[in-house]
Amino acid sequence: MEISPVTSPVFPQRVSAEARFDCTPASENSLLVIPLGGLEEIGLNMTVFQYAGDLIVVDAGLMFPEEDMLGVDFVIPDFSYVMDNREKIKGIVITHGHEDHTGALPFLLKELDVPVYGTPLTLALVKEKLTEHGLDDVTLISVKPRDTITLGCFSVEFMRVTHSIVDGCGLAIKTPLGIVIHTGDFKLDPTPVDGELMDFLRFSEYGEKGTLLLLSDSTNAERGGFTFSEREVSRAFEDIFSKVRGRIIIATFASNIHRIQQAINVAVQNGRRVIMCGKSIVSNAQIALDLGYLKIPGDTWVKLENLKDLADEEVVIITTGSQGEPMSVLSRIAMDEHKHIKVKEGDTVILSAKIIPGNERSIGRIINHLMRRGADVKYEKVSEIHVSGHASKEELKLMMNLVRPKYFVPIHGEYRHLKYHARLAEKSGIPAVILGNGEVFEITETGAARAGKVNAGRVFIDGKGISGVEDIVLRDRRTLAHDGIVIVLIGIEKTTKKIISGPEIISRGFVFEDASQDIINEVRDLMAATLSGLQDDIVSDLSLIQAKLRSTLKKYLRNTMDRRPMIMPVIMEV
Amino acid sequence: MEISPVTSPVFPQRVSAEARFDCTPASENSLLVIPLGGLEEIGLNMTVFQYAGDLIVVDAGLMFPEEDMLGVDFVIPDFSYVMDNREKIKGIVITHGHEDHTGALPFLLKELDVPVYGTPLTLALVKEKLTEHGLDDVTLISVKPRDTITLGCFSVEFMRVTHSIVDGCGLAIKTPLGIVIHTGDFKLDPTPVDGELMDFLRFSEYGEKGTLLLLSDSTNAERGGFTFSEREVSRAFEDIFSKVRGRIIIATFASNIHRIQQAINVAVQNGRRVIMCGKSIVSNAQIALDLGYLKIPGDTWVKLENLKDLADEEVVIITTGSQGEPMSVLSRIAMDEHKHIKVKEGDTVILSAKIIPGNERSIGRIINHLMRRGADVKYEKVSEIHVSGHASKEELKLMMNLVRPKYFVPIHGEYRHLKYHARLAEKSGIPAVILGNGEVFEITETGAARAGKVNAGRVFIDGKGISGVEDIVLRDRRTLAHDGIVIVLIGIEKTTKKIISGPEIISRGFVFEDASQDIINEVRDLMAATLSGLQDDIVSDLSLIQAKLRSTLKKYLRNTMDRRPMIMPVIMEV
Repeated sequence: MEISPVTSPVFPQRVSAEARFDCTPASENSLLVIPLGGLEEIGLNMTVFQYAGDLIVVDAGLMFPEEDMLGVDFVIPDFSYVMDNREKIKGIVITHGHEDHTGALPFLLKELDVPVYGTPLTLALVKEKLTEHGLDDVTLISVKPRDTITLGCFSVEFMRVTHSIVDGCGLAIKTPLGIVIHTGDFKLDPTPVDGELMDFLRFSEYGEKGTLLLLSDSTNAERGGFTFSEREVSRAFEDIFSKVRGRIIIATFASNIHRIQQAINVAVQNGRRVIMCGKSIVSNAQIALDLGYLKIPGDTWVKLENLKDLADEEVVIITTGSQGEPMSVLSRIAMDEHKHIKVKEGDTVILSAKIIPGNERSIGRIINHLMRRGADVKYEKVSEIHVSGHASKEELKLMMNLVRPKYFVPIHGEYRHLKYHARLAEKSGIPAVILGNGEVFEITETGAARAGKVNAGRVFIDGKGISGVEDIVLRDRRTLAHDGIVIVLIGIEKTTKKIISGPEIISRGFVFEDASQDIINEVRDLMAATLSGLQDDIVSDLSLIQAKLRSTLKKYLRNTMDRRPMIMPVIMEV
Repeated sequence: MEISPVTSPVFPQRVSAEARFDCTPASENSLLVIPLGGLEEIGLNMTVFQYAGDLIVVDAGLMFPEEDMLGVDFVIPDFSYVMDNREKIKGIVITHGHEDHTGALPFLLKELDVPVYGTPLTLALVKEKLTEHGLDDVTLISVKPRDTITLGCFSVEFMRVTHSIVDGCGLAIKTPLGIVIHTGDFKLDPTPVDGELMDFLRFSEYGEKGTLLLLSDSTNAERGGFTFSEREVSRAFEDIFSKVRGRIIIATFASNIHRIQQAINVAVQNGRRVIMCGKSIVSNAQIALDLGYLKIPGDTWVKLENLKDLADEEVVIITTGSQGEPMSVLSRIAMDEHKHIKVKEGDTVILSAKIIPGNERSIGRIINHLMRRGADVKYEKVSEIHVSGHASKEELKLMMNLVRPKYFVPIHGEYRHLKYHARLAEKSGIPAVILGNGEVFEITETGAARAGKVNAGRVFIDGKGISGVEDIVLRDRRTLAHDGIVIVLIGIEKTTKKIISGPEIISRGFVFEDASQDIINEVRDLMAATLSGLQDDIVSDLSLIQAKLRSTLKKYLRNTMDRRPMIMPVIMEV
């Protein structure tokens, strides 16, 4: 199929975040590409492809909260657009098993009965999460690389890519208007740990035939050169293992089966046994072992209970907590709160993972604690014990050269990553469009353009996620977090409106009341004086009393203490 | 003076943080070295030296709050030990003008009338801060490098070091038991921007004569090799300036006069004028200019108001906000909230500063905003526009070789930095002692050993700092921040103890009440049922009612919603 050049100009045009669905396709026969998450952010990856009456979803990821999302356990994309078009959905396609691509699935599938497609390991990890949420009847359809599935007018071929998780795929999505290539998360690893190479042939065959659109992973678009092969980590492990006589503790992500495999290989070479410690790493290792993605020689995997029977030089412990997560095994070890593992002089701890921005301080704390207890600690800054799973600039350009798309949309990254990636495309002569979440990219027989915006955003999940956490709740939490709360309690006689009790002052997170009784007394006197100074007509209106008390106290505390607690006048009518 | 070898063993021995002053010097004639801040942490640098009836303080720094110090504006060391010994204090010596060495001075000098010694720029910066706190009558005594001051039985020589601020010094503290060298913050910059070299001669003369103790800066003890010269930044600036036609905006720390000088030099070479933007950078530049530390050719420094009269290729704006601070000039520019500076296509923004751990996300946000508005942004990850001000491993070893101390105590750093630094010393055959804040290191004629612990810790300043913020207040803020507060309000008749009003449920930061009326109603029903199920003997005890309501609701919310808000039953007797 021949696609004529762009007629409508493709240029950045910011769309208000408030706009509700406002997408008016130019024709019935247009392809809509709508990212619902993962653009201008890391995580929450989710993209919709729509043509006439058919819609497919690629990935449905979560994001771990940023520091100002107080009390939020995790974040999922607002997928109300998918819900509004539920009759059109033909299926959900998952590129790989990382949570930033799968974590919103339980929430989506609670409300939607559609099949989910993915490779065996991806689906095994998804299945585990669904079971945790009590979802046991979801249709999971396992595919192999080079398999093609048909979903309405779309057909989707899975193409193997290399990444920091086993069994990752990119997608060739055949649409009535041409081929769309979605890379998933990838790097070009020439020597992957499992020997399963990226499917250069299929990517380049599609490039040769001509592709309409490339959506490509932007996570590392700031980084020049090539990302090192995952296998480089083995060298670092070998180096450490050859020098260390004590126990070795390796912390990494539970999903990084390649990393676990390398640790096991080097352990076996050095006559050490492996203990997996932590729920997620044990379960992921077991899944990978059962599916044949992880190879562990006979008696290498030893139970934690048998740690005491092994000499120090026979031990490798693989665990989680590389990001300093407070409840993780590594954190508990560092704080000396772990039942079986006590860190001691001679132990070596390897943090074999990227230090994710925002986690530096908690990771730093863990390192300090471990070193204080006598362990030697190897981390990113002092040792080469991690490589990234995402393509750097040269690999990203290579991907463009393979696929040779008509249009390019960078995905998976903050704005700066998307921008760097778009620049690479433009240098290669490919028109790049930076989209925001919810922005509709419309491709027709005659061209391509932005076509409005659909509902998109973030939903904050706190606790069991019975409801999302609204912005106003977060705003209140921020105020409470900053300076606490001061409650002014007053009892009023219902009919006469006479004050019969109070004002009493109760505070939390404001000042230490035992030591600051003076301040509390001053506040009480101020509130009493304010009440007695009120006009009769104000007293009859409780909301006016509250407003007056609040504004008086707010001003007073700002001027005298430069603090801004939440102020809550509570009037009880009896 | 001859010092015999260590007789009491020097080894790590953790001391409880709770212990109040428990320092029993072995003799009247012992030298006590007591760090009160800056050990096992970055910032808060403060050390006490004491011999018989004389005490001197070196530095008194602050620290900016970590993310779990909710609502705290900054942190200062607990200097109650100094207060308890106020009659002994002979003076405060400041090594350089950075806030992590000077920021606690206003709080100390509010309670203490002692002279402060430092170099001219250091004191000019200190004076400004003191004036802000209304302290205008402090005795500030200006010294030059190689000057020696006498403070009781101590005499202190200032020796020039190179660092990321002008006019920094290390100290040679002559005590009755020998010479103590305190490096201050330093690196060995062979080509400093102002041409003022480190005083290798004096450091090595002391080394030749024999020194008792070296206290040395550990900030970069993790880093191998040598730290680059500050002058390297000029090359990066020259490279960028030669390629860019639009405006250039450089963000750095206001105290980094060398960096400002380099920006000015390269601006002049490229025919650009310089605009300083932001209160602190203007005032620091003016101070440095007045004191002759900053050289600005005639008409180079232009007022912000004249920005509009300059062509883009004539403009360099120097400002603050390199750490993504929300109220900084750079942040306001990025959010398009700055009155005079609107970022546009063609602008280049240079973040010429270290990304301080913990600030990655806020800096990332600024970069995204700037790029979205069309600016090109140069930052640590993509360009060489910053060098550190602290010595790396090879320089630290060189310092030990110069000074050749009998004992070594690493200062200024988290535990891991101190540990790495101690290892370097041990490899050089120098016994190293890692101290914690408040730990007393006692040196006598016959040896050296730990000698207990004095009161030390952190004081949290919130607002005007009328009082510190106690741990319990921070704990409450954390609870409030995480899941908000639920207040259960009940009115009780004073004599009969009959419930005459409520329960009413009020919440903040818990759920969005408008949308979650069901939850609020359920909570109200549960509380009503709990109240009506209470035994008569419980009803007569208000604290028992409160405990019962709290525990019931706590359990209910945890089980149904997995949330743990602060629960506050408020009973009003009328």
